[in-house]
Amino acid sequence: MSSRTPQGPAPEASVLKARLERAREAAAGTGLLIAPGSDLRYLIGQAGGSFERLTALVIPADGPVALVVPKLEAPGFTGSPLEELGVDVVTWVDGDDAYGVAADRLRGAERVAVSDFTPALHVLALRDALPKVEQVLAGPIVRELRMRKDAAELDALRKAGAAIDRVHARVGEWLRPGRTEAEVGADIAAAIVEEGHVLADFVIVGSGPNGASPHHAVSDRVIEAGDVVVVDIGGPVAEGYNSDSTRTYAVGAPRDADVAATYAVLQQAQQAAVDAVRPGVSAESIDAAAREVITAAGFGDLFIHRTGHGIGLDVHEEPYIVSGNGLPLEPGMAFSIEPGIYQPGRWGARIEDIVVVTADGVESMNNRPHHLVVL
Amino acid sequence: MSSRTPQGPAPEASVLKARLERAREAAAGTGLLIAPGSDLRYLIGQAGGSFERLTALVIPADGPVALVVPKLEAPGFTGSPLEELGVDVVTWVDGDDAYGVAADRLRGAERVAVSDFTPALHVLALRDALPKVEQVLAGPIVRELRMRKDAAELDALRKAGAAIDRVHARVGEWLRPGRTEAEVGADIAAAIVEEGHVLADFVIVGSGPNGASPHHAVSDRVIEAGDVVVVDIGGPVAEGYNSDSTRTYAVGAPRDADVAATYAVLQQAQQAAVDAVRPGVSAESIDAAAREVITAAGFGDLFIHRTGHGIGLDVHEEPYIVSGNGLPLEPGMAFSIEPGIYQPGRWGARIEDIVVVTADGVESMNNRPHHLVVL
Repeated sequence: MSSRTPQGPAPEASVLKARLERAREAAAGTGLLIAPGSDLRYLIGQAGGSFERLTALVIPADGPVALVVPKLEAPGFTGSPLEELGVDVVTWVDGDDAYGVAADRLRGAERVAVSDFTPALHVLALRDALPKVEQVLAGPIVRELRMRKDAAELDALRKAGAAIDRVHARVGEWLRPGRTEAEVGADIAAAIVEEGHVLADFVIVGSGPNGASPHHAVSDRVIEAGDVVVVDIGGPVAEGYNSDSTRTYAVGAPRDADVAATYAVLQQAQQAAVDAVRPGVSAESIDAAAREVITAAGFGDLFIHRTGHGIGLDVHEEPYIVSGNGLPLEPGMAFSIEPGIYQPGRWGARIEDIVVVTADGVESMNNRPHHLVVL
Repeated sequence: MSSRTPQGPAPEASVLKARLERAREAAAGTGLLIAPGSDLRYLIGQAGGSFERLTALVIPADGPVALVVPKLEAPGFTGSPLEELGVDVVTWVDGDDAYGVAADRLRGAERVAVSDFTPALHVLALRDALPKVEQVLAGPIVRELRMRKDAAELDALRKAGAAIDRVHARVGEWLRPGRTEAEVGADIAAAIVEEGHVLADFVIVGSGPNGASPHHAVSDRVIEAGDVVVVDIGGPVAEGYNSDSTRTYAVGAPRDADVAATYAVLQQAQQAAVDAVRPGVSAESIDAAAREVITAAGFGDLFIHRTGHGIGLDVHEEPYIVSGNGLPLEPGMAFSIEPGIYQPGRWGARIEDIVVVTADGVESMNNRPHHLVVL
């Protein structure tokens, strides 16, 4: 037996009902099959648990929406107003043909879109149950809805942002010479929960040379005086929306002489990107705004990732703030702005805020100071 | 940016090399594509992180094995002896055609098997990159290897079992009238980590009527004197192998008069199933051994799930101990034996041990007493 992450109350039934209808409209005749995860939580208010048994929300082009769910898992959906949403709950038990049940609900469709993180186990079984139906991804359909946050979603992102800001405000309690990254990370993880998240989803404490590896988590490296330390942390609040914020700290005066000047460039680049956000400009223009500052200073080769990613029920979602993404920004879009400069083998720095496009500009969900915090 | 669960050291390179070779042999001419997760950890010693960017181990019928990985994620695999394994590391950056790279390595195959939990995002993109190649699941191939644990894997399961036994030994510290299931669950989660797991993967505290819902997690229900409480808990140890053990507690004398006699039947059923385990008998015969005792006592309709599931790097894996599974048990197979009796609206009980098939019988990884523990 196993369970799932605690979830707060689902949004109002009227909100969910409108989302389901918009998803069906956006699908334009394509059937939808949504597996457990953030797409499911967005549409019915509960994420479900993804195991080897099929759980799926089936939205045909016409007719009633169905939740196909193992009988054992059905109690996990009591938090969703399924009856008010008009969703048929179709339970199955070991030995039943769950794929046949889902396929019956989708028969007649020429195409079925499956949610992006549906396991291959279910994708291929559904393919075999509907051999004449073309399978496509539901991501491009659902992201059109999820990318533009409503007022309640923005409130949840503000709550998450304020919670992670409170953790950053306390980093000085734990980050000291003689402690390992893992020890500091464990304290930060506990504080992420104490300050209002339902779990600590990720904790990066990248000290000294480890800071130059953007996806480093924690290690047994002992922090030394003079280290520059990248602290990139976040997790979901009860509503399911995530925080994700990075600040860079120095443990006493930095060992390397180039830190101050390089960091000043980074801070300027991050600010330039935030300042560039407003409706109508492209996602890639925000990446360019940060990259131009860093490149002009001669550090272009050391900024080795995109500037940001959308955030909401997933830590990484659309829109991606990356060269090649011409998507025009619209009010309600939420994403990270997180340029970094990485000096291989020595140190790295990154500054990350979550921002939201407003009617005429930008609002930041993270409001801790941006300078290099010397502890 | 995000990170991943801490992982202990990888198995010896010679062990991993043998697994890779056996996987290739078992695939018998079918190409293999293994996404991040437990299959990847089994084969190269690191699970990787599953995000929107493709990471995959590609094992063609002939020729070198390749790890296709985003450049940013490559440092996450430094714990794997990839060079000793002869695995080519092929990095890619945003803008590259990662699916084309993977497809090139698989060209010429008539079939490609993708790991069971590969996200649809990658399954369908790979389908489009290799339109003439039939996609099948890698699960049936890889499970043939993973189902039979070697000595080091059994040591890791013993370690996990002993750690969760230590947590059960302490449940009396936390389970008291007046506390909520969620409060008790938080204490148990902390103890799961304290006692040697790398994380608390799941915590079920099903008190009173909640105990009758097998997949209930925790709730704000306040525990009362007289409650029967199902505590089903587990998580991975550093080696990646999982614990999963259930004991049922009573908070003072049980409120319901039928608890003692019903529980005695359950305990007898669980023991009968454990005693039935030996090489050569079928998986379903173990399910039947438990079910016959419960049915004979008139509770058959209240035992609403299979008797068990395999366990290892995943909490749920083959072999499933369920009616219809004629698989003959072999030494090294590890699985749960966890019958339950559920009285809707009143109380439930379950007893769960992880057991391993030995050369001539059975070894239990969990060794706490099986009686109803009255606190």
